[in-house]
Amino acid sequence: MRISIIGSGRVATHLASALKAYGHIWVDVCGRKQSHVEQLAHTLGARALTDISDINTNIDLLIIAVADQAIKDVVSKLDKSSGFLVVHTSGSTDVKVISDHIKNAGVLYPLQTFSMGSQIDWSNVPIFIEANAVENIDILYELGEQLSKKVYEYSSAQRLSLHLAAVFACNFSNYCYDIAQQIVQAQGVDFKLLAPLILATAQKATQIDPVTAQTGPAMRHDEGILQQHLEFLQQYMPSYATTYQLLSEQIQHRHVKIPSDKK
Amino acid sequence: MRISIIGSGRVATHLASALKAYGHIWVDVCGRKQSHVEQLAHTLGARALTDISDINTNIDLLIIAVADQAIKDVVSKLDKSSGFLVVHTSGSTDVKVISDHIKNAGVLYPLQTFSMGSQIDWSNVPIFIEANAVENIDILYELGEQLSKKVYEYSSAQRLSLHLAAVFACNFSNYCYDIAQQIVQAQGVDFKLLAPLILATAQKATQIDPVTAQTGPAMRHDEGILQQHLEFLQQYMPSYATTYQLLSEQIQHRHVKIPSDKK
Repeated sequence: MRISIIGSGRVATHLASALKAYGHIWVDVCGRKQSHVEQLAHTLGARALTDISDINTNIDLLIIAVADQAIKDVVSKLDKSSGFLVVHTSGSTDVKVISDHIKNAGVLYPLQTFSMGSQIDWSNVPIFIEANAVENIDILYELGEQLSKKVYEYSSAQRLSLHLAAVFACNFSNYCYDIAQQIVQAQGVDFKLLAPLILATAQKATQIDPVTAQTGPAMRHDEGILQQHLEFLQQYMPSYATTYQLLSEQIQHRHVKIPSDKK
Repeated sequence: MRISIIGSGRVATHLASALKAYGHIWVDVCGRKQSHVEQLAHTLGARALTDISDINTNIDLLIIAVADQAIKDVVSKLDKSSGFLVVHTSGSTDVKVISDHIKNAGVLYPLQTFSMGSQIDWSNVPIFIEANAVENIDILYELGEQLSKKVYEYSSAQRLSLHLAAVFACNFSNYCYDIAQQIVQAQGVDFKLLAPLILATAQKATQIDPVTAQTGPAMRHDEGILQQHLEFLQQYMPSYATTYQLLSEQIQHRHVKIPSDKK
């Protein structure tokens, strides 16, 4: 395939570099950060551009791998009559952002946290594809399967649910670790002591249902401990008292108390 | 040492069984659930009791390993003039709950989630001790070091901070996994797809500071995605919209936006 890419950040670099091995012809790399664009273009043997209107239209596929909020703007600058397939790589962006303007539209979303410089085992990265026509799905399946054993056709709503779930399971759980570290550090206690429990909790949640794995004072409806924890937070870090209260109430709501005569 | 224990639940069973190997004389096991008490007493070669006033006072140490909210009540039933050391095993309970009434008082708190039937590698379980006199600290150090390489003398406030931090790092992070599972299941998406990301997030937080490891739309101040996620939650699971909003706001507050000209 003749492929061009818009974007030269982490996703663009990782994705294009991984696809390089499969014999595609890379035509243009277009982006705002000239040094990044030139570096990626050099790696791929492609032309470096900073103006979208300069993109060579004699291609099969254009990958838009830019920040989510910039996708709409990039699409508005494309020639509406182009026949090539245009895809974005975003978990949370509807395919409509492209298909409302472009005839052949799709999504190729790799579920992975990309860091610059790190190696990715692409064969295990789940790739979610979506397109507005069967022949475009076929193209994306073929491309996805060059990279990964795990290619799934998912709707925009399913992809969004996955991205949103990852925010809870990864970003918010990490923020809970962050609060934990602040709490112990304020008392001169080493956060590393919690490492085995953190790892065991994550392990368990991936082996059995997290709802079954739930433990703690909120789940036990231990009002004495809940009150004590709240008082401690109000004294030492009041901004986290609301968080503690909200999450504890929700856990109590999800794990209804069993009357003691039924225990 | 001549030791007795009040309680026959998970902590009592694991702790007493682990200490059995070190040549102590087990005198009494006292608790409300007769079958559990008899089983533990049998394992230890001790007497099974259900009435605290029957406890033989010719002992060196009494371990109270009952539910946190029951400790106060148990202490009130002990003979105030007893000379033996009385300890509880609770992370969140102040040593004062004992030392206000009993001359020799302490705490022996193992930081570990105990499940019935599972094997514990005691040598790596952090044990936190506290006592109201140097000679009692010495006794608890010796006892703790029979079990674990990691024995620390911590104050009640430090122990409470650790227990509270564990609620955030383990109970609340698990609840975030639980919400994530509900979100994807509602769209017919397999929760197992998130397992590699969950494990990688936990790993990373134990290797570098969680605050440094933070990622996601809130940290990036990506208002478009935040709005889209909120709308999705309001449509499909409104009860979690508040949680999403609160945690996102706190993350945005903790990771202040860098003006684009400084990026």
